[in-house]
Amino acid sequence: MTRPGPPGSPDPYGVHPAWLPDEAFRPIGSRRTLLRGGGPLAGTVHEEVARACARYGGSVRRQAAGPDDGAANGRDDGGEAGGDDGGPYDLVLALTAAGPLPAVAEAVLAGFRRRSAADDGPAVEDEGIGEEGYVVARRDGVTVVLADSAAGLLYGLFHVVRLGEEAFGAERPAERHRPAARLRMLDHWDNVAVHPVMGQVERGYAGGSIFWCDGALRDDLTRVAAYGRLLAACGVNAVAVNNVNVHAAETRLLTDHLGDVAAIADRLRPYGVRVHLSVNFAAPLALGGTATADPLDEDVRAWWAAVTTRVYEAIPDFGGYVVKADSEGQPGPHAYGRDHADGANLLAGALAPFGGVVHWRAFVYNHRQDWRDRSTDRARAAYDHFAPLDGRFRDNVILQVKHGPIDFQVREPVSPVIAAMPRTRVALELQVTQEYTGQQRHVCYLAPMWSEVLGFRPWGPAGPGVADIVAGDVAGGGLVGVSNAGDDPYWTGHPLAQANLYTFGRLAWAPSSDPAAILDEWIGLTFPLAAGRDDGRLREALHEIMDDSCGTYERYTAPLGVGFMVRPGHHYGPDVDGYEYTPWGTYHFADRDGVGVDRTRATGTGFTGQYPPPWSEVYESLTRCPDELLLFFHHVPYGHVLHDGSTVIQHIYDTHFAGVEEVERARLRWAELAGLVPAALHARVRELFAEQLRCAEEWRDQVNAYFLRKSGVPDAQGRRIP
Amino acid sequence: MTRPGPPGSPDPYGVHPAWLPDEAFRPIGSRRTLLRGGGPLAGTVHEEVARACARYGGSVRRQAAGPDDGAANGRDDGGEAGGDDGGPYDLVLALTAAGPLPAVAEAVLAGFRRRSAADDGPAVEDEGIGEEGYVVARRDGVTVVLADSAAGLLYGLFHVVRLGEEAFGAERPAERHRPAARLRMLDHWDNVAVHPVMGQVERGYAGGSIFWCDGALRDDLTRVAAYGRLLAACGVNAVAVNNVNVHAAETRLLTDHLGDVAAIADRLRPYGVRVHLSVNFAAPLALGGTATADPLDEDVRAWWAAVTTRVYEAIPDFGGYVVKADSEGQPGPHAYGRDHADGANLLAGALAPFGGVVHWRAFVYNHRQDWRDRSTDRARAAYDHFAPLDGRFRDNVILQVKHGPIDFQVREPVSPVIAAMPRTRVALELQVTQEYTGQQRHVCYLAPMWSEVLGFRPWGPAGPGVADIVAGDVAGGGLVGVSNAGDDPYWTGHPLAQANLYTFGRLAWAPSSDPAAILDEWIGLTFPLAAGRDDGRLREALHEIMDDSCGTYERYTAPLGVGFMVRPGHHYGPDVDGYEYTPWGTYHFADRDGVGVDRTRATGTGFTGQYPPPWSEVYESLTRCPDELLLFFHHVPYGHVLHDGSTVIQHIYDTHFAGVEEVERARLRWAELAGLVPAALHARVRELFAEQLRCAEEWRDQVNAYFLRKSGVPDAQGRRIP
Repeated sequence: MTRPGPPGSPDPYGVHPAWLPDEAFRPIGSRRTLLRGGGPLAGTVHEEVARACARYGGSVRRQAAGPDDGAANGRDDGGEAGGDDGGPYDLVLALTAAGPLPAVAEAVLAGFRRRSAADDGPAVEDEGIGEEGYVVARRDGVTVVLADSAAGLLYGLFHVVRLGEEAFGAERPAERHRPAARLRMLDHWDNVAVHPVMGQVERGYAGGSIFWCDGALRDDLTRVAAYGRLLAACGVNAVAVNNVNVHAAETRLLTDHLGDVAAIADRLRPYGVRVHLSVNFAAPLALGGTATADPLDEDVRAWWAAVTTRVYEAIPDFGGYVVKADSEGQPGPHAYGRDHADGANLLAGALAPFGGVVHWRAFVYNHRQDWRDRSTDRARAAYDHFAPLDGRFRDNVILQVKHGPIDFQVREPVSPVIAAMPRTRVALELQVTQEYTGQQRHVCYLAPMWSEVLGFRPWGPAGPGVADIVAGDVAGGGLVGVSNAGDDPYWTGHPLAQANLYTFGRLAWAPSSDPAAILDEWIGLTFPLAAGRDDGRLREALHEIMDDSCGTYERYTAPLGVGFMVRPGHHYGPDVDGYEYTPWGTYHFADRDGVGVDRTRATGTGFTGQYPPPWSEVYESLTRCPDELLLFFHHVPYGHVLHDGSTVIQHIYDTHFAGVEEVERARLRWAELAGLVPAALHARVRELFAEQLRCAEEWRDQVNAYFLRKSGVPDAQGRRIP
Repeated sequence: MTRPGPPGSPDPYGVHPAWLPDEAFRPIGSRRTLLRGGGPLAGTVHEEVARACARYGGSVRRQAAGPDDGAANGRDDGGEAGGDDGGPYDLVLALTAAGPLPAVAEAVLAGFRRRSAADDGPAVEDEGIGEEGYVVARRDGVTVVLADSAAGLLYGLFHVVRLGEEAFGAERPAERHRPAARLRMLDHWDNVAVHPVMGQVERGYAGGSIFWCDGALRDDLTRVAAYGRLLAACGVNAVAVNNVNVHAAETRLLTDHLGDVAAIADRLRPYGVRVHLSVNFAAPLALGGTATADPLDEDVRAWWAAVTTRVYEAIPDFGGYVVKADSEGQPGPHAYGRDHADGANLLAGALAPFGGVVHWRAFVYNHRQDWRDRSTDRARAAYDHFAPLDGRFRDNVILQVKHGPIDFQVREPVSPVIAAMPRTRVALELQVTQEYTGQQRHVCYLAPMWSEVLGFRPWGPAGPGVADIVAGDVAGGGLVGVSNAGDDPYWTGHPLAQANLYTFGRLAWAPSSDPAAILDEWIGLTFPLAAGRDDGRLREALHEIMDDSCGTYERYTAPLGVGFMVRPGHHYGPDVDGYEYTPWGTYHFADRDGVGVDRTRATGTGFTGQYPPPWSEVYESLTRCPDELLLFFHHVPYGHVLHDGSTVIQHIYDTHFAGVEEVERARLRWAELAGLVPAALHARVRELFAEQLRCAEEWRDQVNAYFLRKSGVPDAQGRRIP
């Protein structure tokens, strides 16, 4: 079932290596490495180094000793890849508990223990490196990576890969790295059975699923393992393997087809990635023969407990359940007069004995709204449903909140739910798959948007940011991304969309990272030869093409935060009125005089009141509201003057012309890169740019024509509007 | 696969009897009948009468004699149903060639031969009754039906059924009836394999297909025979058994699966209905291994000749091919630099030796139009493609033309193609399936619209009408309807939509019939008990509900002929801008000042010039153009004053409020009929009325809100517009 890969791809499965090409391992593979640590995860580290050495002539000695692998304790596997090799070493990778360390490593560890500052993790009290953390240093000509756990060692190895030759250059003091968020998860909206409307992968733009094909688990799970490796290299440690919309076939993954989930878990475990499962809240009714799915019913509780016990028997490190309940037609506790806390706690109770968590999605709203009723506001719904429940959820419930109050539009304010539930673990849900941002046919590097969300401070500059809330060491629920990967040979359809997958993981690990710096890192890994050239042409061009591509997308699509001017159903391309008279709650209310949604407390739906000050005041105020969110919060006349002195209508025209021009510049910039990147990859991106340009022109012309017809205001610059 | 039928249905298959309930046969079945005529079709007549007699105690004697059944010649099957019965008879059904007739029949025949006027057929020179025709009279207390052919006898029998008791009342002079059009065909847009988007029946609103199920011919063809019987009873004599969009599975009906088509033909033949097949123009390439499908290529020609010969070997009375070529992505002659005449003549050549015809559809336009380009006009396309080809088509090519220039909207002008091709046989294509007229969830009796089309006189009052052109004895191509029947227990989803199927056949037979009279006939047949009551409540109510239901539908949907304000894709419900910025060529160009499409020669697309005078002048003129087509031909300001003194904008508001009120009245009227019609039928229509009302309100509110937002003109009556 594997499609033909890019010509010349070194991978036997014809799959693009993404950010882990062999070349990225040359610095390690051409040197001498000592690995100290036992257990399967350290085994993964060993395999990585050994494979690199086999290719580039270096060597690796493994001394498998450590408390996390009793069987292999004290074993010395040394020298497999490099023959007789007693040292000295260029690289030492060691578990701190793996017995006496080489002198240089002991010196690094002692130095680290004398310091207390964490480098990019949250501040900590203890002196340990921490679960999943690692310390990296270069001292006396040896690069040292230390970790308390094998997972940390694996992440440390990929840190060295990222550093490349630099890892073996100048001395560097000990730096500790640990993830900001414990849970860094990708949700796959993959269906087991092909859905008649949504297909194999709901909102998937990268071919089929790497897990499922035509109603069954794939025979060949090679790509699942390769995916796990890519995820480990960017820091993701959890994957939900099926769509949050759980249909009939997927419901049975919990029971009859649990073996399929276990098989996936087996492939991901070597990379420190745990498996989670989206479940059907009505599963006891559908599968268990109970008379109800009422979360307070004893039979239901017993059913979930029994089923969950069997899950952990099959998958001891199972992560937990993901639930979309009482949302867009999915079953939930409301049918029994119960609330979301009742529902979530039911599953949490079943999972708690095993350390599992429930990701309970906050994406709950009335999708059968009457468009005539302007008092109902979908933006309010999640807060109205969940804020009153704060404090009622069990510790192992994580409320999974989309970043904006509507649905992954390119511009939304941050969801007020995130700041509304101090006694609830909250996870931030981002959409890596580009449902509303070009569907992996358009270049749209999402990190700047995500970074803005993560940096948003709901209580103003002095308060904590979203990243602090969701990644907090105790109460944080972590980050969840809806995956953009599929069985496409480039993993993500658009080769440049790999950067979004990579960056999601990196931001989940370190939310305050600079998006441009992560992109630079991704460029260096993905295109190691071209990016390594002195002239920097590829880096410069890719930054020009990608750094502000999300801003470009915003400019040529729905203006000023109004959102949802997309074709209904598939959500690709423009349809200004497409959702205007529908039950979906996504309106712009454009008339001949003006446009926008009045969400103020004074005259509108009152949504602004869901924010704490200062934002409740800023958004309420027509003059203080940021321009980019103006139409999200206010209905204004076309002549309304923005902060830059332009009018709303002229801003619409200007940004739409500008957005298309930017796409055209990016397209031409890409054309210049022929020869710097693999020919097949270049050709695919070139073709996609043709489509992006066509589509951007369509957006420009439809949006401009729509507003010209409505407003009657001509473009001040006299450009052609059809 | 048959669904549960209406409770209490007498049919063993649970299927509603439509316009042939047993009760309709009581007048015949309770009397003494003599049938004179041999052959299978006369056998059908005999079976009909015998079954009625078995139920109601009458008798039938058959004297099978006549030139069209050598085997049964001179045989006397008399008395099977009624025991010893040598006469006298209440009803004589006789073929004129069946030897010496009973005296009363001879007298009727002699009387008829002395007259020369045809009663409802076209004027004729000869003295014969004509193929498919019959003479009916009552003389000396005997009802007499005479025909030259067994098909005519079958139609005559159903005439007597329609007359009911009246057939056996007062004496009536001889009347001759013959069909105006030779070809009275229903096209089924049924797919053999379920299409991923369009399903089993494209634009079908009555369940699955009666022919096909999940990729294969149905095992049980009982309903096909029942369908043929219904068709014979309303005068249809041809059926195309598969969708004009011919996909892979359907392409093979021509060859590998020809047996399936033959099996259907076997079931329809006893009712005088011939089978036609929609074919893929590229079939030789797809199936035959030719290097091309070029219509001028010798191999291609030979392939079609050979294949067609095999078709006639399997189905000696096969009707011919239906072709959608170079239309909406279907293959056609353009790929080879050939024109439609080349393409059609290729198939005509293969069919000619066997007397078959090609229905070549004129529905050709650019479905990838740039909406920005206002000079391209889809309405022009069919004329521009086909008018220059007049005279180039072979005699057995029939150009099948949709009634309007766009696509079955509830209001369009008559297609100018119909008057543009005097040297071509033209068939009129009507859409019985309610794609754009409520999808068999709304009551919409289409006959008044069809009647208007058939009565339209392209050259003005003194010239011939559309009916004369398409039903002309020599050059006419007949009438084609896209069937609205499926495997629904009521055949048509909405039980009242049966009237459209019935009326299509009756209008194809006699285009000048009064739609209200046909409806009355349908009521009497379908609801014989209730309709027969003296108080006439049912008749009165159904006329109120149905007579002007098409006008009602027009009022609450797209105004003043502008059309296509439907949801893209499925075409149900409103979306005013749904097609406005698409490649489909269906626009309204509404802006803040006005609405409509300028198709004038003076300032628009010039489409008005495709009509002969006087219509070329009438449509061109803003003052003379009929209001109901105003926006089809002109772009006018919202304040434009209509002939009734109202403005365009106020007309939009008024008609939309009125349309909904009419639906509500009809709904209440229907509610009063509980007890007069079968309970299950009443309940289904009641449920459908709830949906119709909801949808009509949606239309009203969306259209009114859209135009209020655009125009800013308030409703003069101050009604609420959301």
